[in-house]
Amino acid sequence: MIVKRYPENPLVKPSYVKPSLENYEVICAFNAGVIECGDEILMLMRVAERPVNHKTDLVLVPIIDFTEGSAKQKILSFSSTAEGINLDDPRIVEFPGKVYLTSISHLRIARSKDGVHFSVDDTPALSPDQEYEAYGIEDPRITKIDDTYYVVYKGVAPTGITQCLASTTDFVHWQKHGVILAPENMDGLLFPSKVRGKYAMIHRPYPKFIGTPNMWMAYSDDIIHWGEHKFMLACAEGTWEGGRLGGGAVPFLTDRGWVEIYHAATPGDRYCLGALLLDKDYPEKVLAKSPAPILQPEAPYEVHGFKDNVVFTCGAIVRGDTLTIYYGAADESMCAADFSLHEILDSLVPI
Amino acid sequence: MIVKRYPENPLVKPSYVKPSLENYEVICAFNAGVIECGDEILMLMRVAERPVNHKTDLVLVPIIDFTEGSAKQKILSFSSTAEGINLDDPRIVEFPGKVYLTSISHLRIARSKDGVHFSVDDTPALSPDQEYEAYGIEDPRITKIDDTYYVVYKGVAPTGITQCLASTTDFVHWQKHGVILAPENMDGLLFPSKVRGKYAMIHRPYPKFIGTPNMWMAYSDDIIHWGEHKFMLACAEGTWEGGRLGGGAVPFLTDRGWVEIYHAATPGDRYCLGALLLDKDYPEKVLAKSPAPILQPEAPYEVHGFKDNVVFTCGAIVRGDTLTIYYGAADESMCAADFSLHEILDSLVPI
Repeated sequence: MIVKRYPENPLVKPSYVKPSLENYEVICAFNAGVIECGDEILMLMRVAERPVNHKTDLVLVPIIDFTEGSAKQKILSFSSTAEGINLDDPRIVEFPGKVYLTSISHLRIARSKDGVHFSVDDTPALSPDQEYEAYGIEDPRITKIDDTYYVVYKGVAPTGITQCLASTTDFVHWQKHGVILAPENMDGLLFPSKVRGKYAMIHRPYPKFIGTPNMWMAYSDDIIHWGEHKFMLACAEGTWEGGRLGGGAVPFLTDRGWVEIYHAATPGDRYCLGALLLDKDYPEKVLAKSPAPILQPEAPYEVHGFKDNVVFTCGAIVRGDTLTIYYGAADESMCAADFSLHEILDSLVPI
Repeated sequence: MIVKRYPENPLVKPSYVKPSLENYEVICAFNAGVIECGDEILMLMRVAERPVNHKTDLVLVPIIDFTEGSAKQKILSFSSTAEGINLDDPRIVEFPGKVYLTSISHLRIARSKDGVHFSVDDTPALSPDQEYEAYGIEDPRITKIDDTYYVVYKGVAPTGITQCLASTTDFVHWQKHGVILAPENMDGLLFPSKVRGKYAMIHRPYPKFIGTPNMWMAYSDDIIHWGEHKFMLACAEGTWEGGRLGGGAVPFLTDRGWVEIYHAATPGDRYCLGALLLDKDYPEKVLAKSPAPILQPEAPYEVHGFKDNVVFTCGAIVRGDTLTIYYGAADESMCAADFSLHEILDSLVPI
């Protein structure tokens, strides 16, 4: 598999992004939904920011607080040696039975004429302001259906991690449609056209007791209400997808079926990308899949960052035989790489 | 709170129920959905059965197998001293990263003219025969809407625990409508009438990382596709509902709002019942709740059984001021108790 990482990588670093709040710093700009819009390529990035903290003995947790009625930015503060505190994962502050995030994310647009050089908007496109978003909004996937751009994203809150929906026709005016999939669910992405007369979505619930974090398909008549959930693909113990897997880029249709670029991770959290070929009419049927990752953390900006050894995609662009996968690298920056679509398709193994 | 347990309790014991399969034994008949139908009260019980096992060094796991195309009963066999095996919970066989059930459940009707003396059908009403039901079907709640009885039940499979829907007009001919809520979800129950023009359902997702197992509300236009998920009620640490909670009986409307009889458990799995008063138009708003259990395991058949210290309801009948709660006792038998509805309502504390 020939992987043409862009020499300009990372295309966007956290330092290119202005914080949205005073006395905050941007620590990650990553996991962008990507779409062609007019003569531009837009990345709707997840921007994670945190309060500037000069006290090493304190851990700060930024949240949206609703106790006074309306949404209000608030910072919780914990001693870094508090009883029961676990700071092993840089993304979270964990107490027994309780998890907080060390940063809060919003969605920000970066725009480009050539798909390589991006300029980042000064202000957020979409910010957390609902109770189901109290810990932030993350990992958007953009799907254009008719003249509307639908964004499925992760809403994180003390009540759970949900899949939420927002829509826009211009990336300026937004409408939020609430929680479309209950906790705990991630990696939701809408198909760009109806399947057998219905809207279709890949999603990735994370079960507590029975089952691994598997990919599922759901169907809808209105994009708001979802059902007909079908199991799609499970983790494979002992492989590069032994820990978890989930949808990545919005799928696109080829004459062989839908192509889905997805992510998978080991139990040790090494995130790679692979490809799936899905049945045109019953996309929960996986016809073929990558026997090995098509992209794995190897470049320095993928191996080292906010979270080491992660490549994670929320969007790709197809032009002829060139598939450009935009991806978050080391949970910190935005990168891209070109692939040959027919080379990917030829590499898939029937299952 | 005056609790009038029926002197005839348990109303149905496992020994009253014929196994549905040769060389199987019924170990539990419990957690029945309940409804008035003509001049009868029907209990749609969860009947758990397992292969008769004379070998103490073996653990048997009954499943539905699909590897040969169609659904086929199959028994897995493990050494009781297998590496990594955990048999602490009588309901499950646990290996690292993998959970099996020690029994497989179907749904069986028990019928009564007086609500006290029940005769149990000889054969199942509804059996597991779909891949999403490979470990059994459990905990049904029956809701009559127009002339159709809808049953929301738990489908258990290696791919996860889902909420599924079936319907019938006569409890003889059934239609399965598939998975309506993705893993991991339990305790789904449909409201008996539309709320602000939409079907409404309480459900209880069980999140892996963030949030406790909380009650949520969802809405639908067709009972098949669900969205508009709203957080409803969280566990309360250190109380009788510190471990988990979830919907119980199908709610009924009073002049003060919807009344929901629900269950809650401590982290040590002591299951009790309480009552909620829900807003008539926005039932995700809990107006008032029980400050203490209205029913807790005290009778011998509640304290000792297949799983000790459990009372768990899937259905209740209201007649005037008398609320009859039918409930599973110790995960083994079906029981009932009468309450005064106004006494329950007067006991609720606004939140």
